Amino acid sequence: MPATLRTAVDTPLPVLGRDVRVPLVTGGEVPYAALDYAASAPALQRVWDDVAAYAPYYGSVHRGAGHLSQLSTDLFENSRATVAEFLGCRPGDDVVFTRSTTDSLNLLAAVLPPGTHAFAFESEHHAALLPWGRRGDTAVTWLDAPRTPGQAVEALERALAAREPYGPALVCVTGASNVTGELWPVRELAAAAHAHGARIVLDAAQLVPHQAVDVAESDVDWVAFSGHKLYAPFGAGVLAGRADWLRRAEPYLAGGGATRSVARGAAGEPVVEWHDTVARHEAGSPNVIGAYAIASACRALTAAGFERLEAREQALLARLREGLAEVPGARVVSLFGDDAPRVGVVSFVVDGWNSSHFAAALSAEYGIGVRDGLFCAHPLVRALLAEGGGSSDTAARSASAWGGGGRRAGECGTPDEVPAASAIRVSFGVGTPEEHIDRFVRAAGELATGGARWTYRTEGGRCVPEKPVAG
Amino acid sequence: MPATLRTAVDTPLPVLGRDVRVPLVTGGEVPYAALDYAASAPALQRVWDDVAAYAPYYGSVHRGAGHLSQLSTDLFENSRATVAEFLGCRPGDDVVFTRSTTDSLNLLAAVLPPGTHAFAFESEHHAALLPWGRRGDTAVTWLDAPRTPGQAVEALERALAAREPYGPALVCVTGASNVTGELWPVRELAAAAHAHGARIVLDAAQLVPHQAVDVAESDVDWVAFSGHKLYAPFGAGVLAGRADWLRRAEPYLAGGGATRSVARGAAGEPVVEWHDTVARHEAGSPNVIGAYAIASACRALTAAGFERLEAREQALLARLREGLAEVPGARVVSLFGDDAPRVGVVSFVVDGWNSSHFAAALSAEYGIGVRDGLFCAHPLVRALLAEGGGSSDTAARSASAWGGGGRRAGECGTPDEVPAASAIRVSFGVGTPEEHIDRFVRAAGELATGGARWTYRTEGGRCVPEKPVAG
Repeated sequence: MPATLRTAVDTPLPVLGRDVRVPLVTGGEVPYAALDYAASAPALQRVWDDVAAYAPYYGSVHRGAGHLSQLSTDLFENSRATVAEFLGCRPGDDVVFTRSTTDSLNLLAAVLPPGTHAFAFESEHHAALLPWGRRGDTAVTWLDAPRTPGQAVEALERALAAREPYGPALVCVTGASNVTGELWPVRELAAAAHAHGARIVLDAAQLVPHQAVDVAESDVDWVAFSGHKLYAPFGAGVLAGRADWLRRAEPYLAGGGATRSVARGAAGEPVVEWHDTVARHEAGSPNVIGAYAIASACRALTAAGFERLEAREQALLARLREGLAEVPGARVVSLFGDDAPRVGVVSFVVDGWNSSHFAAALSAEYGIGVRDGLFCAHPLVRALLAEGGGSSDTAARSASAWGGGGRRAGECGTPDEVPAASAIRVSFGVGTPEEHIDRFVRAAGELATGGARWTYRTEGGRCVPEKPVAG
Repeated sequence: MPATLRTAVDTPLPVLGRDVRVPLVTGGEVPYAALDYAASAPALQRVWDDVAAYAPYYGSVHRGAGHLSQLSTDLFENSRATVAEFLGCRPGDDVVFTRSTTDSLNLLAAVLPPGTHAFAFESEHHAALLPWGRRGDTAVTWLDAPRTPGQAVEALERALAAREPYGPALVCVTGASNVTGELWPVRELAAAAHAHGARIVLDAAQLVPHQAVDVAESDVDWVAFSGHKLYAPFGAGVLAGRADWLRRAEPYLAGGGATRSVARGAAGEPVVEWHDTVARHEAGSPNVIGAYAIASACRALTAAGFERLEAREQALLARLREGLAEVPGARVVSLFGDDAPRVGVVSFVVDGWNSSHFAAALSAEYGIGVRDGLFCAHPLVRALLAEGGGSSDTAARSASAWGGGGRRAGECGTPDEVPAASAIRVSFGVGTPEEHIDRFVRAAGELATGGARWTYRTEGGRCVPEKPVAG
C-alpha cells in the first residue's frame, strides 16, 4: 500500500483514509477523494478508535462465564440499546443485528405472515425491490415510478385500497434514493399505509448517514440500514421495529443462539423450543464488533448533531450541483425534479462519454473515487437514462421509458451510445472536505471540455489507462 | 475497561488481549485466562495488524471506479483465493463468504436440490442439526449417536443404503465436537457418503483452528467455518466446495450484488437475471474486512505450521486432562472414550457442584474465562450428563440416556442435582500460554477440594459473587 502523509482537512467528523494519497497516471500523487459513500463509507476515526480499544477485550458472548465474555455480552446488548435510541424506537420494538440492509429486508420478507400482500415502487433499488416476491404465499404489487412525492402517496393509497383480499400488507419504501439522493415522503407513505391497514418498512440505508431518523415520530413499522454506509464497516446491519411479526415467525436461521431448548424426539429428531425474544433471529455467534461499531457511529453522529451535519452537507451539495450545472454536457438524473430535497448523492451522465471511461479518468488523472454503473437499481437507472438524464429536462420524460430493457456498455474508452448504458455517481458525507467536491467539479469540467489526458481500455472488467493521448 | 499491563507469555502466535488483566473478587488482579476459544477466539495480533493496516484503504467494492475501491475489490477476491488455498479446494470449487458457520449451513440447506434426503447424527450441535428439516421438500434421517468412530461410519452406510427413494442425499458431520473436542472420522464418512451416491458437508468450525483441513484430500464436498473461531472475529464465515448445487439454486438473499441484470416486466415487476458465479449468494455489500481478516488468519496459521501448532496443543491438552483427572469429583464427558483423538476442547462436571457456580468461581476468584451450559448441543450434552459424565465410566452409558429431556439449573450457588443440568467447557488454542492451563488445573483442584471463597447467587441470568464465605 502507498505511503501515507497527513493532510489537514476540514470535516466535522474525521474518517479513516483521510490521509491516504494515491498515485496519478499523469505523475505524482494526491490525497484520495472518496466520493462513493453511498456504496461504502469510510469508518469514522471515532468508530475505529472504539473498536481498537475494545478489541483486546473481545470475548465470547452469552453463556461465557469469564470477565471478558460478560463485558462483551454487555457491550453487545448495550449496542442494541444505543441503536434503539438512535432510531427513536418505540418501547417494545426489537433491534435485530443482521449483516446488512439486504439481509434485514430479506429477514423481514421471511417473517411476513402468510398471505401478506407486499407493495413496492418499481423504481426501488434491488435490495428493496426483490425480496418480496420469493415466497409462494405472498402477492406483490409493483407501483409505477412516481414523478412527484405526492404521486407516490396517491398511487400507494389507490393500490392499498384496491387490494383483494384486504388482508395483511407491507409497504417497502427507500427513504433516500441511492441513485438520485432524493427524499421520499416517508411520513406521508406511512400514514397512507396505516390508513389502509398496512405496515411499512423504511429502507434507511442512504438516510441514516445523512439525517436523524425517528421511527416513532415518522411512524414507520420497521427500519433497515447497514453499518458499512454508516461509517461502521464491520459486517453488521440492523432491522428494527415491531416485534410481533418477528417473534411469531419461524427463525431466520436455524442454529444455536436462536434456540431456548432442543430435546430429542422419539426418532432422534430434534424438538426445538425457539427463543421468543430478539435472539430468535440471531442464530450463530453475534458479530459483537460489528454491532459495537454501529453503536459507536450512532453516538458520534448524534454528538456531532445532525442539524449541523445536514446544513454542511446541503452546502456541499449545492456547490456540487452548481458546479456540475456548468460542466458542458453533464446531465443529472432525477425522479422528482431539480427542487426536490435530497441528500449528498448525485448521479449523472456526460454527453459523448462512456460513464466507465469518465469515472476511470476521474480516478487515474485526479485521484477521485466515484462509481459508475446502474447502482443495483437497474430499472430506475435504465429508465432515467432512456429519458436522456437531464434535471433541467424532466418535463420531457416519457412513461414508455420504464419499459426499456438493458443495454450493456461497450469498450470503455470509446464514446457511449445514446442513451448511455450507465451513469456516474458522486456521493459524500461527514468525512468529505470541500476540496474533494471542488476537485471533482474542476476535474469534471476539464474532462468534459478538454478530454482525458490518457486513453483507456477495458481490461478484466475494468476501465484502465492505456497510454498518454498523442499530441 | 481495566488498565492493561504487558505480560510475557510463550505462545506460538500472539493474540489480542494477552495483556489484559482482570480484577479478582478476592482482591488484586491477574492476567485474564481466556479458555473459551471454542465459542469465540481472540483475534491474532497478526490479523488485527493486517486489518488495521488495511482499514484506511477501505473502499466500496465491485463497481467503484476509484483507487481504493479497486484495491478493496482485489483484496476481497484475493481473500477468497487465500481461503481456497488454505482449505485445499479443488479447481472449480466456490468459496462463499457468509457471516458464520450457522449461516453457511443454512445457505447449503437452502440450495439443496428438491427432494434431497439429509442425514445427520442426533449428537450434532444445533447449527449442524437444525438447518436440514426446514424445507417441506427435504427428508431428514437422524442417526443414533455413535459410541465409536467405526459405529458412525457403519450407521451412515446402513442409513444411506436404505434410503427410499435413492435420490440426492447430503450428509452433515462436524469434524471436531464443540463439546468433547473429539475428532470424527471425516474421510471415512466422506467415502461412505460417496459410495452411496451422497454428498457430505464438513462443519469445520472447531477443526480449522486446530488442524490443517484439506477438502480435496479428505474428499468432502463442502466445508463450513467461522472467522470468530479462527482468530478473525469480524463477522464473516465461509462455505466452500462444489459449485454446481450452489449455482443452480435460487440465490440465498435477494438483492444487489447477486443480480447480473434486472429488467422491468410488463406489469412493472422485476425480471431478474441472477449471477451464476459465487456472487449469486453474496447479495449486499460484501464484508471486506471480515473476509480479509479470515484470509490473514489462514496465512498466519499456515506460516506457523499446523504440525507444530498441533504438537503444542496436544501437549497442553495432555497436561489439562492429566490435571483434571486429579481433581476430586471431576468427570470429563466423552462420546468416543478416553483414547479418542481430540482437539483442545474439554467439557466436564464436578460432583456436588452446579456448573454455573464452578465457572463463576473460576472467573471471579482466578480470572479464568470458561463456559458453562449445554454449548448449543443440547441433545448431546444432556445425554452425556445423564450418563453421569465420566470418561473412565463410558461402559456404563445407557442408550436410554438419549431419550432424556432437559433439566434447568437451579440457583447457581447451590449444589446441582444429579445428573447435572449443565457442564463446564475449557477450550484453548494458539494464543494460550501454559500458565493458563496450569492455573485452571490448580483452580479446579482448589475449588473441588476446598470450595469457593465467596458465595454466589443468580442475578440477571448470571452467577455472581455475593459475599465472602464466613469462616
